[in-house]
Amino acid sequence: MKKKIENNIITEKKIIHNYLNKLNFNKIGTFNFKNDAAYIKTLKNKKIVITSDSISEKIDFFKFDNPKSIANKIITINLSDLSAMGAYPFTYSLNLFLPNYIDNKWLRIFTNELYKLQKKYNFYLLGGDISKSNELSISATFFGNTKTNKVIKNNSSGFNKDIWVTGNIGDSYIGLNILKKKININDKKIENYFINKYYFPKHSLIGSKITRFVDSMKDISDGLIGDLQKMLIKNGASLNMSKIPISKNLKKIIKNKKINFSNILNGGDDYELIIISKREFRKKIISIAKSNKVKITLIGKTIKKNDLFFDSNNDLNIPREFDHFS
Amino acid sequence: MKKKIENNIITEKKIIHNYLNKLNFNKIGTFNFKNDAAYIKTLKNKKIVITSDSISEKIDFFKFDNPKSIANKIITINLSDLSAMGAYPFTYSLNLFLPNYIDNKWLRIFTNELYKLQKKYNFYLLGGDISKSNELSISATFFGNTKTNKVIKNNSSGFNKDIWVTGNIGDSYIGLNILKKKININDKKIENYFINKYYFPKHSLIGSKITRFVDSMKDISDGLIGDLQKMLIKNGASLNMSKIPISKNLKKIIKNKKINFSNILNGGDDYELIIISKREFRKKIISIAKSNKVKITLIGKTIKKNDLFFDSNNDLNIPREFDHFS
Repeated sequence: MKKKIENNIITEKKIIHNYLNKLNFNKIGTFNFKNDAAYIKTLKNKKIVITSDSISEKIDFFKFDNPKSIANKIITINLSDLSAMGAYPFTYSLNLFLPNYIDNKWLRIFTNELYKLQKKYNFYLLGGDISKSNELSISATFFGNTKTNKVIKNNSSGFNKDIWVTGNIGDSYIGLNILKKKININDKKIENYFINKYYFPKHSLIGSKITRFVDSMKDISDGLIGDLQKMLIKNGASLNMSKIPISKNLKKIIKNKKINFSNILNGGDDYELIIISKREFRKKIISIAKSNKVKITLIGKTIKKNDLFFDSNNDLNIPREFDHFS
Repeated sequence: MKKKIENNIITEKKIIHNYLNKLNFNKIGTFNFKNDAAYIKTLKNKKIVITSDSISEKIDFFKFDNPKSIANKIITINLSDLSAMGAYPFTYSLNLFLPNYIDNKWLRIFTNELYKLQKKYNFYLLGGDISKSNELSISATFFGNTKTNKVIKNNSSGFNKDIWVTGNIGDSYIGLNILKKKININDKKIENYFINKYYFPKHSLIGSKITRFVDSMKDISDGLIGDLQKMLIKNGASLNMSKIPISKNLKKIIKNKKINFSNILNGGDDYELIIISKREFRKKIISIAKSNKVKITLIGKTIKKNDLFFDSNNDLNIPREFDHFS
């Protein structure tokens, strides 16, 4: 019955006691992680949105990346999926596959960042498990609520609908390629701007707030074009290339011919949302974006033909007042 | 808009189409895995029990183990946790970290076994994700219901309560040690019996059926003694060693001095349940076990002193009719 003395070894018990306990926010169903399972209580006829995403060393992040960045990524990829469904998070479970090089410092920084993000977006850790592994992998399963009980799918049909994108795209892709030494930028400040966008992605917060006015949404984890194509099952799209929202820094390096614009459209974990909606809701969507301080840009429309066109001369009948808000 | 030709590469899309689609049982919230998230619909004031467990190559199974066995393990460890909470599964999400050596044959056998277990225990795959990795790891998050809305914790206090264990313990531990070449058994048939117990563990089905009559339950994933100690926070236990339920084959090899009995008590993934209950419910518990064809054995009682005693002379006042049922 005596507790084993395991001072120098990072045991599951110690990880729970020293690092994870603070993340359950004393919620009753978590049992303080003393149980192997937990529970959530439900309301009548509510839809609980569930998403599960993983990240892995060498695939989704570099070995020895800052644990603060790794914490950001596992949270952002999941919150981004929830947002695209029109949901906001309330709890999550976490599976940690930890190699030997994970020490107390790593765990402290990692869980402090989780704590910060949980406070910011108002969700708690329900439970999870810890396994040994030769490589660092993390998976998380998130549980979300919706305000309207309407769950948004990531595809829709019909033409002459608006195609929007939130925020800017491409910055994270540039950051990754700077780290891979495929792009070289002389200006240290601009270089750091891009690297930071890669290391600390943020999901778009607008998803759960505009569910009433959208047909479908998808977060960009595979490049704007790739993800847009997944949304269009029967129809196609006509995009106005000049409308694609990019940052001032990205404009600068495109001008300096450091990067081809089409690469930006076809790659990158932006975690911004592509939104397809009926034209009658333009004003509503702009107004919700404005009040949430989210940049949103009308970039094109769905068309009958199942193909993708770029037409920079086509103004898409976008009145000037619907041009992007930033 | 044309589909890429990826004949020889196992893509996420192919894995979903060829292997995972059949596992969603056409349930509406799964969106046929076309979405990055899914949903479940809830009833009023129901508790949804959630557990999340992972297994990893070289830690929880050997590299190149039969995918049928690996499928069994990821399901059993999770269903076992649910059972200990008094719950039965209704859906789950799956995170696959797949190394390069995973081929179509592996995926077919793995998902066919998942399908079989889903049909047997009546649950469906909600969603999940697939990542590349250098090592095979799998994590699953399971969602369970309870019949009574009572969620059982894995610890309780109080003394003079009954301690039960379901099934037999130790067989899986022997199987593992045969594979590790630490135990040598001449009889091929007996050897296979133990190895099979290691490769194809089964969770105890009785958990969700006896919630009304138990104080606490825990599944054995760390040996009977280790897991019992986790259940006893303030109190201790007196166990009658001679009552610990073991298989005929295990009795045989203990007799032949192949194995020390105490090793069996301190190790092994048995996935049987330890149950602590009030003495007044003895008859109820035996009767439920009988009608579910589950072997259950009274092995001791909780005591005031926070320590663990073995007393083979103490018959624990167990009347003969409460001796184990098999």
